[in-house]
Amino acid sequence: MKKSTLAVALSAIFLSTSVWADPSMSSIEARLAAMEQRLQAAEQRANAAESRAEVAEKQAQMAERQAHQLAAVQQQTQTSAAEVAQRTAKPEQKSADEGGFEFHGYARSGLLMNSSAARTQGGPTVTPAGETGGHVGRLGNEPDTYVELNLEHKQTLDNGATTRFKAMLADGQRTYNDWTAASSDLNLRQAFVELGQLPTFSGAFDNATVWAGKRFDRDNFDIHWIDSDVVFLAGTGAGIYDMTWSDQARSNISLYGRTFGDIENNENTAQNYILSLNNFVGPVQMMVSGMRAKDNDDRRDIDGLRVKSDAAETGVHALLGLHNDSFYGLTEGTSKTALLYGHGLGAEVKSIGSDGALLPEADTWRLASYGTTPLGGGWHIAPALLAQRSDDRYVKGDSYDWATVNLRLIQEITQNFEMQYEGSYQYMDLRPEGYNNRNAVSGSFTKLTVAPTLKAGDVGDFLKRPEIRLFATWMNWDHRLDNYASDDAFGSKGFDAGGEWNFGVQMETWF
Amino acid sequence: MKKSTLAVALSAIFLSTSVWADPSMSSIEARLAAMEQRLQAAEQRANAAESRAEVAEKQAQMAERQAHQLAAVQQQTQTSAAEVAQRTAKPEQKSADEGGFEFHGYARSGLLMNSSAARTQGGPTVTPAGETGGHVGRLGNEPDTYVELNLEHKQTLDNGATTRFKAMLADGQRTYNDWTAASSDLNLRQAFVELGQLPTFSGAFDNATVWAGKRFDRDNFDIHWIDSDVVFLAGTGAGIYDMTWSDQARSNISLYGRTFGDIENNENTAQNYILSLNNFVGPVQMMVSGMRAKDNDDRRDIDGLRVKSDAAETGVHALLGLHNDSFYGLTEGTSKTALLYGHGLGAEVKSIGSDGALLPEADTWRLASYGTTPLGGGWHIAPALLAQRSDDRYVKGDSYDWATVNLRLIQEITQNFEMQYEGSYQYMDLRPEGYNNRNAVSGSFTKLTVAPTLKAGDVGDFLKRPEIRLFATWMNWDHRLDNYASDDAFGSKGFDAGGEWNFGVQMETWF
Amino acid sequence: MKKSTLAVALSAIFLSTSVWADPSMSSIEARLAAMEQRLQAAEQRANAAESRAEVAEKQAQMAERQAHQLAAVQQQTQTSAAEVAQRTAKPEQKSADEGGFEFHGYARSGLLMNSSAARTQGGPTVTPAGETGGHVGRLGNEPDTYVELNLEHKQTLDNGATTRFKAMLADGQRTYNDWTAASSDLNLRQAFVELGQLPTFSGAFDNATVWAGKRFDRDNFDIHWIDSDVVFLAGTGAGIYDMTWSDQARSNISLYGRTFGDIENNENTAQNYILSLNNFVGPVQMMVSGMRAKDNDDRRDIDGLRVKSDAAETGVHALLGLHNDSFYGLTEGTSKTALLYGHGLGAEVKSIGSDGALLPEADTWRLASYGTTPLGGGWHIAPALLAQRSDDRYVKGDSYDWATVNLRLIQEITQNFEMQYEGSYQYMDLRPEGYNNRNAVSGSFTKLTVAPTLKAGDVGDFLKRPEIRLFATWMNWDHRLDNYASDDAFGSKGFDAGGEWNFGVQMETWF
Repeated sequence: MKKSTLAVALSAIFLSTSVWADPSMSSIEARLAAMEQRLQAAEQRANAAESRAEVAEKQAQMAERQAHQLAAVQQQTQTSAAEVAQRTAKPEQKSADEGGFEFHGYARSGLLMNSSAARTQGGPTVTPAGETGGHVGRLGNEPDTYVELNLEHKQTLDNGATTRFKAMLADGQRTYNDWTAASSDLNLRQAFVELGQLPTFSGAFDNATVWAGKRFDRDNFDIHWIDSDVVFLAGTGAGIYDMTWSDQARSNISLYGRTFGDIENNENTAQNYILSLNNFVGPVQMMVSGMRAKDNDDRRDIDGLRVKSDAAETGVHALLGLHNDSFYGLTEGTSKTALLYGHGLGAEVKSIGSDGALLPEADTWRLASYGTTPLGGGWHIAPALLAQRSDDRYVKGDSYDWATVNLRLIQEITQNFEMQYEGSYQYMDLRPEGYNNRNAVSGSFTKLTVAPTLKAGDVGDFLKRPEIRLFATWMNWDHRLDNYASDDAFGSKGFDAGGEWNFGVQMETWF
Repeated sequence: MKKSTLAVALSAIFLSTSVWADPSMSSIEARLAAMEQRLQAAEQRANAAESRAEVAEKQAQMAERQAHQLAAVQQQTQTSAAEVAQRTAKPEQKSADEGGFEFHGYARSGLLMNSSAARTQGGPTVTPAGETGGHVGRLGNEPDTYVELNLEHKQTLDNGATTRFKAMLADGQRTYNDWTAASSDLNLRQAFVELGQLPTFSGAFDNATVWAGKRFDRDNFDIHWIDSDVVFLAGTGAGIYDMTWSDQARSNISLYGRTFGDIENNENTAQNYILSLNNFVGPVQMMVSGMRAKDNDDRRDIDGLRVKSDAAETGVHALLGLHNDSFYGLTEGTSKTALLYGHGLGAEVKSIGSDGALLPEADTWRLASYGTTPLGGGWHIAPALLAQRSDDRYVKGDSYDWATVNLRLIQEITQNFEMQYEGSYQYMDLRPEGYNNRNAVSGSFTKLTVAPTLKAGDVGDFLKRPEIRLFATWMNWDHRLDNYASDDAFGSKGFDAGGEWNFGVQMETWF
Repeated sequence: MKKSTLAVALSAIFLSTSVWADPSMSSIEARLAAMEQRLQAAEQRANAAESRAEVAEKQAQMAERQAHQLAAVQQQTQTSAAEVAQRTAKPEQKSADEGGFEFHGYARSGLLMNSSAARTQGGPTVTPAGETGGHVGRLGNEPDTYVELNLEHKQTLDNGATTRFKAMLADGQRTYNDWTAASSDLNLRQAFVELGQLPTFSGAFDNATVWAGKRFDRDNFDIHWIDSDVVFLAGTGAGIYDMTWSDQARSNISLYGRTFGDIENNENTAQNYILSLNNFVGPVQMMVSGMRAKDNDDRRDIDGLRVKSDAAETGVHALLGLHNDSFYGLTEGTSKTALLYGHGLGAEVKSIGSDGALLPEADTWRLASYGTTPLGGGWHIAPALLAQRSDDRYVKGDSYDWATVNLRLIQEITQNFEMQYEGSYQYMDLRPEGYNNRNAVSGSFTKLTVAPTLKAGDVGDFLKRPEIRLFATWMNWDHRLDNYASDDAFGSKGFDAGGEWNFGVQMETWF
């Protein structure tokens, strides 16, 4: 009720009261009638008040109930928030101190034994061709514990710039023992810094990343099933990634140094500097590298004699690659193919610039290709090919030719179990011309492996880990291959042509 | 007030109004009486309205107050939640990148000097019996910096399966210098993967964990005070933990490989494969292992000579253990007791399968026991016993018998300070029969140590760290023991029988 | 309305009702008048009820609105809290397991080549004075990949006490290759525990930190631009930091051990114990140390011959330092100055107690000073001085005197790019008296470097990293210096006096 209405009503009451002095019956009746009206109004007002008070009560009760509920929830939220606060108190302190820490790694470890449960030989480079890069299938064929531990520190600054530091510790061991100090190869394989998203960079450099230090090049890629990089550019240096010319085109430029010889003996050391330009246009990769190692032919051993007076001092290297989003354009899957050529110091076409014994005349061609695709019915297939022709490599007139085909199959059984099968075939024709006491041999190698494999999930995915595998491997090769060298695997005690069985169990993981 | 009641009341009003036309006094009186009644009702209703409005006001005020309070608290909660959100932003990003990273470790480091503040000898294996596992008390008796750094990566997949990767870096050094590259023993002692909670595993395998890689077996256990594992199964292999037969019974099965000889020299290498079954029924453990190292007797040194032509090629090992939740069933505390037996290659009963020089006839029995219990008044006690009888170990007719008793006492002083006392006694009777240029000796060794110890908390707890200790140790032994070997601690320059004092300070931590 | 008031009002109503029986007009008028009053009261009460109900409604509505708002906010908060809880679930689990993990590190890595893009010499200790601590400028003068990786574990206990464990892995390499197992110097340089905020510590020890293990002393400090610590106390030991005497005064006490000789050969090992007291009063530091290495003159080589029979067995060392908050009190910036003196084993004044070849008569004085200040216009300057006089150091009558002045300038270009300039000059007069086949030489060395430098941010800050630098360095020195030694840098093949250019690229980071 408005105050003005109330005022009018109250005035009416006092007015009618003032005429009360007249004692006639008609006035009484009039006064009673007025009273009647006023009483009705009062009654209505009282009714309205009751109604509104009733509503107010309900509203207030609801408000209270709601507030109570809120209070209860609030209690939970507070407790939860307090718990979270408490729980995360250490990470906070940590974050403040350590910034964006990341832990990544790769590891494989397991047992490899022959059919007598005794020591045997193995590894993707087990054949004579392995010395010049001729890998064969790795499944059921790895005798080592190899581990890479990566510790990273990442930052994003207020200006949007990003920094990344990565250090990699790595070790490889063939002993099964836990304490391996005597044979430890633990070493620091990478230590580099990257700067990205620099606010003062623009145009083609807008998304460029600048780096320096010791590293594996970011855009190296491999054929996993034969444990061989297609290209492995690594060393100490600096460069720029992702100079971007268009949606489809980008380039990297880098300068890597590598060291030939024994670093402890100053006279035996030469530095090889590799300038590399790596271009990507859509699925096509075109990488060209030039390198120079001054005085490589003048390195001296401990007695002052030249290590290799005919060694190359320069080299060139080129890679033409195709990175498909499909299985060779045929069906779903992936595939990568690369043709590599190297000359002089560039003639080690995988590990660019890492071989200081190459001749200036050395020429190497290599073809690498692999793909993965599902076959249906829980089957998946991954074929791979690696073939090389290398001439005048270490001695004029020598040649190292070989070709490997490898086929990996996965058969999904349950969500934790798959069968893996691998067939690997290699033909080699090696003519070292007496270099390093190697003998000319030719012949073929075959490996067949079956590996029941346990996974936490992602069965059927060729590249998801961890895996734990049992395996049985059968290998055989031409007797001629046993004669390649006296200190290599083939023809060593208890490991010669005629068929070898290897058995074992192995884990592999990366993250 | 109900609506129907109101309708009746209003009808009554209009009814009485309609009889108002009759001007007799009796009708006036009747009407006045009716008015009186209606007025009473109106007054009552108004009273009720007042009361209810009053209540509504109070409720509404309370609701408002509560809502205000909630708002204030809410503000805090929101701020807190925002802070937590902000604070934990980096860990989130990190978790996304690194998954479940964990850092664990063990470290001890300190000074150990003799009473002239010069170099001295020490360590739990300082006595001649140490060579065959006869440890003595470690308190105030450790000259090294020994560190284990564990980096782990854990995942829980959407299907509930868990994965774990663990890598351990370890190093032990006796130099005090910071830069220890020349004497570094840094090596990778463990690198393994575990898969658990696999959704397709059921029955006895429901909670089983499958593993592969290089590791210390999960169920190894030790007598901390003499730094000796009761059993130390380790190497590279694979296995399954926790096949569960009932609430009380579970089993592990594992296959470990170990390597004898120098891994760099292929002819000197033999692999020892250990198949082990480890069963637990309530507090009882029954572990049996068999092992085989083919061609262990045919290993050759660098000159082609056999390393040990009488070495065993097979072995067996058994452990019967009792893991008590009480101090030998007598009072509160803990205790563990184990009886071990090994034959042939199994005759190194602690580090199973790690000793390739054992004879086929070798026989070893070992008893190990320790317990901890509070004594009251801030005192705690931990007695331990380790005793061994080993025959035909390395040479037919040899014997290596010894027994160690060790007693550690803690006296709580404040919440950061405790006194530790250790007494250690060992009797040994060693008859090497000329093996390794060792001489037959017998006699006893005694060590007494007092160590004022600083802790951040948990004084009186034998197994909580970190600790920083000062210590004084007195050792003495029979003169005969100085003659055991020319290259061991006893009888070396400045360290012979007659009583030796060692002093020092040391930290120890694990986490 | 109060209940008593209501009771009076109701009594009045019943009273007036009882006089209603009198039928005279005057009584009617009286009754009507009474009714009028009662009606007024009823009306007023109804008005009041309406008003109060109205207020109650508004309050209740507001309460509801507020509660609704709270509910909405609450929903957000809960969602947020849930998100945070979920997001931080892994860190929590991690925290539970790993506590406060921290990752810190230092790294530098890059290429250093001469003007023919071939191997060259370099490093802050490249000059003959480098052997006795005479560092020169490091910018554009570092040929190595050097990395320190620190893993820490921190805890705060319920009682407020803090614990810290730190382990440092470090490696230094001059090879550019990635796999460096053959030349790896990877080693564990630090492993120590700190206990702080112990609740039972009070008075001067209230904020004291107790530590033990292998470490670099916390209060070491360096001249960054010449890569030389002013004082480097390190080794294995124990001590107390921050015994606090007043707001201005605090002290550290420590006992460090160091090892002389080859730790593998027991007879060649001596332990040097260094007791050090380090006091700070405002900006002034006064550090005194005494040391003793018993039998240092009696160490034997592998043939039993004394390594250095005239070596000192004791030493003293003192440092007087000034740590300014300004650039030598002149303008804004920082500066530190220290005068060091050492005698006997203390005569290696930087790396206290690390040189076991010093004579008992050896005397060394060293002055170290550096400052940083902005010059305006985006320029910053950092001058440094290091000068030493050392007599009777290794051979009676020898002397090793040298002084280095170094000047680093930064010119800010953009927020990601700066130019760095460094000039370094050193004069040396070294008279080894035949020790270690060194020849007496004197002369000066000059180095000038320009280094375009990329940073993610903080250009102009001398001590913020990461940085990636290109650089060109010109060095020259007196021909006489080429004759100091046959196995040092100066005068080695392709690196002799007359002016040398070095070029390269390098990253440096710490975090």
